[in-house]
Amino acid sequence: MNKLKCTMSYDGTNFSGFQIQPEKRTIQSEVEAALTRMHKGQPIRVHSSGRTDKGVHAKRQVIHFETPLDIPNERWKKALNALLPADIMMLQVEHVPTTFHARYDAIEKEYRYFITNTKERNIFQRHYMYFDPTKMDMEKLKQACKKFEGTHDFTSFCSARTTIKGSKVRTLYEVKAYKQDNIIEIIFRGNGFLYNMVRIIVGVLLDVAKGKLELEAIDTLFAEKNRENVGVTIPPEGLYLWNVIYEKSESF
Amino acid sequence: MNKLKCTMSYDGTNFSGFQIQPEKRTIQSEVEAALTRMHKGQPIRVHSSGRTDKGVHAKRQVIHFETPLDIPNERWKKALNALLPADIMMLQVEHVPTTFHARYDAIEKEYRYFITNTKERNIFQRHYMYFDPTKMDMEKLKQACKKFEGTHDFTSFCSARTTIKGSKVRTLYEVKAYKQDNIIEIIFRGNGFLYNMVRIIVGVLLDVAKGKLELEAIDTLFAEKNRENVGVTIPPEGLYLWNVIYEKSESF
Repeated sequence: MNKLKCTMSYDGTNFSGFQIQPEKRTIQSEVEAALTRMHKGQPIRVHSSGRTDKGVHAKRQVIHFETPLDIPNERWKKALNALLPADIMMLQVEHVPTTFHARYDAIEKEYRYFITNTKERNIFQRHYMYFDPTKMDMEKLKQACKKFEGTHDFTSFCSARTTIKGSKVRTLYEVKAYKQDNIIEIIFRGNGFLYNMVRIIVGVLLDVAKGKLELEAIDTLFAEKNRENVGVTIPPEGLYLWNVIYEKSESF
Repeated sequence: MNKLKCTMSYDGTNFSGFQIQPEKRTIQSEVEAALTRMHKGQPIRVHSSGRTDKGVHAKRQVIHFETPLDIPNERWKKALNALLPADIMMLQVEHVPTTFHARYDAIEKEYRYFITNTKERNIFQRHYMYFDPTKMDMEKLKQACKKFEGTHDFTSFCSARTTIKGSKVRTLYEVKAYKQDNIIEIIFRGNGFLYNMVRIIVGVLLDVAKGKLELEAIDTLFAEKNRENVGVTIPPEGLYLWNVIYEKSESF
């Protein structure tokens, strides 16, 4: 049996998220359908580094699966891309040790959120960036980002619909924002992310940037451990799972 | 009766082109449907600066129509955007003299063509730029652009399916190419464009940039006045009708 690690991009626009669901078009169901065809009808289950929601994109998502087929990496990549729809693309296929797990072995994940901050909506970016014409104070936004770096209990910044029972303590190694050509990009690197966490945090960051929330209020929100005191979950179209990092020794 | 000039963007991805056709989703049919709703069922015909093909985008297309309704410009814009689908957006609505015509009064049009020139396809740009990983010589590309500037008979660079019976002499005021972040942008400004003309010319320009065609061969292609001697029509996803220019005095 071979174990394969695949790195892939997808455009989340026309998917009901990553995870398989009856009657819905999902990334998992499309990838598994392609693999099942390659295995002459034998069902193949894939495991991802984590789900992404409806409308959320991936620049580099990672999955693994097991297969009896002996095919070189480059041919795997070509074969899968030939079978996959145009909104999913395999970037890399690698043989990995049988102990590898796309979710448990990830040591770092990176998400990025993009906001078009212009007066007028750009119709060509409507599925790929969040549009907000409100004037934003970039200095305040940068300061607010710093508040989220480090190890915190992120209970206040996690969807109430989470299924996680254990600790909501996570570590964000870096949260940083910058603006170029009227596009604001916010980068999150951390050891783990809770359900809707990035989109809830971005909502808070933008409230600070717009002057609707004081910088110090973020400390209070953390302390209260209550999702209901925090603002809205920002829409999915601006969000990208940007990268998943593993110990170097795990690929060969 | 009022005459209105509308400037609009559209994402051509999910349209069978601008012009109304039975059973097809077109930009014209969507705009006319929105206008008909605003006129309580009375059909309204729109006239554009020119058609765009299936899959071709518009950054700024111009149309005009006549209406008995007395509504201020800003409210027209809001009302139409509320009725139009997400892939068409009105940018500006203006009252114009009854003599105005979106097609006959245009004195200049600008088209732009975008090419992603990287090794790897970018899945998020698949509907918005043409992908070509071949190595391109930008100097040669720039020289080839110059060959198309000025007044020429463009018979060789016009689709055989054109319905034009008259002269195929047109003047291109500017044809220029540049590259930034692995994206090649080619700008065409002229007094008129024939059917598929930009996409046929871009095909020739890229052949020169790739070393598949000599610069001097362009002169021969012009002289032969034969579409069949010229290469393929490049795909529509990289093409944008970028702007339409009118005499300033025509708006008020």
